Amino acid sequence: MSSQNIYDQADFFANYAGIDRSVLGLAGAPEWPRLRALLPDLAGRRVLDLGCGFGWFCRWARSGAPEGGGAAAVHGVDLSSNMLERARRMTSESGLDGITYEQADLETLPLAEAETYDVVFSSLALHYLVSLPRLVRGVHRALRPGGAFVFSVEHPIFTAPSRPGIVKVQGEDGKERRYWPLDDYQREGLRVTDWLAEGVRKQHRTAGTYIGLLLEAGFELTAFDEWFPRDGELADKQEWERNEMVKPTFLLVRAVKKAV
Amino acid sequence: MSSQNIYDQADFFANYAGIDRSVLGLAGAPEWPRLRALLPDLAGRRVLDLGCGFGWFCRWARSGAPEGGGAAAVHGVDLSSNMLERARRMTSESGLDGITYEQADLETLPLAEAETYDVVFSSLALHYLVSLPRLVRGVHRALRPGGAFVFSVEHPIFTAPSRPGIVKVQGEDGKERRYWPLDDYQREGLRVTDWLAEGVRKQHRTAGTYIGLLLEAGFELTAFDEWFPRDGELADKQEWERNEMVKPTFLLVRAVKKAV
Repeated sequence: MSSQNIYDQADFFANYAGIDRSVLGLAGAPEWPRLRALLPDLAGRRVLDLGCGFGWFCRWARSGAPEGGGAAAVHGVDLSSNMLERARRMTSESGLDGITYEQADLETLPLAEAETYDVVFSSLALHYLVSLPRLVRGVHRALRPGGAFVFSVEHPIFTAPSRPGIVKVQGEDGKERRYWPLDDYQREGLRVTDWLAEGVRKQHRTAGTYIGLLLEAGFELTAFDEWFPRDGELADKQEWERNEMVKPTFLLVRAVKKAV
Repeated sequence: MSSQNIYDQADFFANYAGIDRSVLGLAGAPEWPRLRALLPDLAGRRVLDLGCGFGWFCRWARSGAPEGGGAAAVHGVDLSSNMLERARRMTSESGLDGITYEQADLETLPLAEAETYDVVFSSLALHYLVSLPRLVRGVHRALRPGGAFVFSVEHPIFTAPSRPGIVKVQGEDGKERRYWPLDDYQREGLRVTDWLAEGVRKQHRTAGTYIGLLLEAGFELTAFDEWFPRDGELADKQEWERNEMVKPTFLLVRAVKKAV
């Protein structure tokens, strides 16, 4: 089975290239500070970036790579030639050594080499995958003992609904109420949504399933962060901030390969 | 601070005594088989039961205690004299040795003895507690290294909403849709609901907070089960079964005290 290559679909890519996290880079990804905080010190480490998109580590290096950046080598994998082209160009323009890219489908990526990486990273990619159990086992094998798997996904509460979207209703007290119309939480599998383009295909999994996949592969869970904006972090986006208190959008996870 | 002693409130207790899990015992608690599966072999073990209610371990022993029952000693703690009176009577009538009971408030329970228990168990009690962080640290101290903390709580998705309850709407296709009106997920704290009596006080915490409390105390998370009915398990309660697929009600957790 192969992935939907939505990032190489013209209408989707044109829209994606215009959203905050594309235009502003790391500064446009509100969950990045907390995701970065889950990464170990990267100095001298070998890193694999699954679904690297425009290239997180290149962007991070360009921004000065504070607080532990500076990996010895980063290998980015993505399915989208659009994304990789831009990542390669930016990496080359920045004169960055040690960052390589590869076009491949995470559904079928071999990951055959054992104990190669110190860190495997993935931002908002794994919820597209049907064959996530296979990938998690592969990541475990590819990590050195004590190595960390740090990733974000769309939160299970966010992926679950058959009709996602904040609903606003007028309460009896005249006040506006906002809720998230959660349904089908326990029915895992395909969700087709219209986000930037029609017919984007995602895979809904429960929190229990994400955790179970990690534990079964031999990981120890060491962080499970349901991101939300702290103390007016999104004060310039008040509507968004209000909606983020209703339900979690991002789930940030760190799991460590146990030393045997 | 002390707990609301809702189980000693006459109207609540009269109603509680009539629900399935009171009348039918373990057979009326649909999550029990999966919660039991999280317990290690109890033979010869010392067990602490926090919020023991009518006495899970007495009931389990009476039912034949299959699959690993038969603890050497069980100490049950509950705030409700109503519950404890019934638990003590049933234990005594059954001629069971080794099960003791104590009336105490989990909000202030000392748990001062270190490395006393092999297993600490709790069924649907911890979501009432304001001082859960204190209790989790106490449980960690009271367990022997390698010992297990096995508990169920009302699931964070279940405790979150300001107005809990399945909502049914007619879709444009004429079909009935059911959803759970999730809101305030990221706002932790008091929830006052009307369940069996008016004004039942619970504490909402996110999944991330439950996991974080365990990890910070020094536990390793080894199971995180968002219970739902499998394969017509509740076929005699089809309405309930349908609602349980919409959102999780119970969260079942096992955490192990790491050997230093």
